[in-house]
Amino acid sequence: MATVTELLQPVELDLETLLTDLRSLIGAGHPILQAAAEHLFSAGGKRIRPGIVLLISRALSPDGDLSPRHRRLAEITEMIHTASLVHDDVVDEAATRRGVATVHSRFNHRVAVLAGDFLFAQASWHLANLDDLDVVKLLSRVIMDLADGEVKQGLYRYDTGQSFATYLEKSYCKTASLIANSVQAAGVLSGENPENLKSLHLFGRQLGLAFQVVDDILDFTGNDQQLGKPAASDLASGYLTAPALYALEERPSLAGLIEREFSGDNDLDQALELVRDSDAIPRSRKLAEDFARESREAINWLSDSPCRRALLELPDFVLSRLY
Amino acid sequence: MATVTELLQPVELDLETLLTDLRSLIGAGHPILQAAAEHLFSAGGKRIRPGIVLLISRALSPDGDLSPRHRRLAEITEMIHTASLVHDDVVDEAATRRGVATVHSRFNHRVAVLAGDFLFAQASWHLANLDDLDVVKLLSRVIMDLADGEVKQGLYRYDTGQSFATYLEKSYCKTASLIANSVQAAGVLSGENPENLKSLHLFGRQLGLAFQVVDDILDFTGNDQQLGKPAASDLASGYLTAPALYALEERPSLAGLIEREFSGDNDLDQALELVRDSDAIPRSRKLAEDFARESREAINWLSDSPCRRALLELPDFVLSRLY
Repeated sequence: MATVTELLQPVELDLETLLTDLRSLIGAGHPILQAAAEHLFSAGGKRIRPGIVLLISRALSPDGDLSPRHRRLAEITEMIHTASLVHDDVVDEAATRRGVATVHSRFNHRVAVLAGDFLFAQASWHLANLDDLDVVKLLSRVIMDLADGEVKQGLYRYDTGQSFATYLEKSYCKTASLIANSVQAAGVLSGENPENLKSLHLFGRQLGLAFQVVDDILDFTGNDQQLGKPAASDLASGYLTAPALYALEERPSLAGLIEREFSGDNDLDQALELVRDSDAIPRSRKLAEDFARESREAINWLSDSPCRRALLELPDFVLSRLY
Repeated sequence: MATVTELLQPVELDLETLLTDLRSLIGAGHPILQAAAEHLFSAGGKRIRPGIVLLISRALSPDGDLSPRHRRLAEITEMIHTASLVHDDVVDEAATRRGVATVHSRFNHRVAVLAGDFLFAQASWHLANLDDLDVVKLLSRVIMDLADGEVKQGLYRYDTGQSFATYLEKSYCKTASLIANSVQAAGVLSGENPENLKSLHLFGRQLGLAFQVVDDILDFTGNDQQLGKPAASDLASGYLTAPALYALEERPSLAGLIEREFSGDNDLDQALELVRDSDAIPRSRKLAEDFARESREAINWLSDSPCRRALLELPDFVLSRLY
């Protein structure tokens, strides 16, 4: 199985340029924002979202070239993603993300609010100046979905009555919308026809959902070190994901533990055992595999190129984190 | 002198509709945001910004009508303004605004971040769906200016070496940009020619600057009750405005007090006395009067109507807060 670095190899130099551009765009002229930008855009992050936009952009170009507008779109995607992470970490009061201190714990929540707003504002401004109303609509939909997803996530904490559809909708808003709409926007900038735009959207949507379900499975099967956060932290915080929702169907006693917010001494361990003993993990894995397959199938029509080959491997790469 | 209610009388019903629409747009489906929206959009606020957009929109219409898109523009203006206030209050750690508890002190800073993001996101989405790229650019410039102004304001705290131009630029970003660009956007939606669009922008810009200078004077001349916050709180926080900057030219000893951040027992009182004893207040008043006159002159070309008459009275109304 390829590593993420190998998969992103066709756009490796593009990603380096993107990071340099982002650092100079954001930090310019303000020492605190400069520090926050360094912190946010320093080495370490995989930049998989702008990587996907760049791969799609080159795959859609007859000669494999990358236009300045596609490049800018990838930057905007990463700005929106980063802004939303910074604010989510304030809202969720997270101290670390993937093992690294969050902006609000490294600096304070004032800097985090400011840095996030500044990133959103820069993104809106550059977005408008791409001069394409359809692209503006797609990416403003993303900003709306991200806010909506964060609100929904809070709303359904510890809610054992929520439907599976609600979980998928929240996952779409928080994870898949950004990939689906930015990939579609790359297609708009390339002048693709409506049918291809629809399949680009589907590719991003199913890939994002596969990614999210895998993440949700790992919360139950991974250990602290693999996750860069305590295992089962989603469940402990009351965020009910695919494994928990499947387990609730099989093990009704799980509901009581969740509804009393794991206030008993062994509640969380007991809940984890109920999930792991049920068919919930295999069923979740099957769900992720279905999303991954649908994602791959959606872009079969792309002409052969190194970027297309990387894109077709992405869904399997997402699943490979499970093994 | 007319009251603000009298001035906004031609659009009173429009403003009521706007508030009802905003309350239902924002709070829908989320109890905490609902509470925050009630708190933000409840009675009391003067809604002068959307009021100006509505007055201009009707003044530009041959039959005085208001189109749904102009109405939506006024809503977007108020959403952006409110979102920026909510986040600024987190960044500035303000406990009250005009005597009312801020969202982050009434709820907490997590709700404030979420509510602000949700408002910004709604604004971006509705903005894109006005389907006019020029309007998108004007309002995304506002979002950028607001973030930039908040960053600049932090950057120049206690900085006695800052130029008067820096102060005006910060005031433009934080106060005037929203009025200037939203008024111009109303003109774009009405199909005005470039010359009229320029003068609409100038009207809003100079009105916003007059408003800000008046606010800055009141920080020195008003009492706690008039201001809804402690008098001289800008100066105490190190925000140097027109009166302080003029006084620094005449009274060099003021610089020392500011630079040591009023750490001595009587430093702040002494500084206030230096400002009040100098020519700084009359000079600031003259500046506000100049901005107000330029604002009025910029829209002389509008055809006569009740809305035009209200708009022409606005600059004097802004000044009247000084007397």
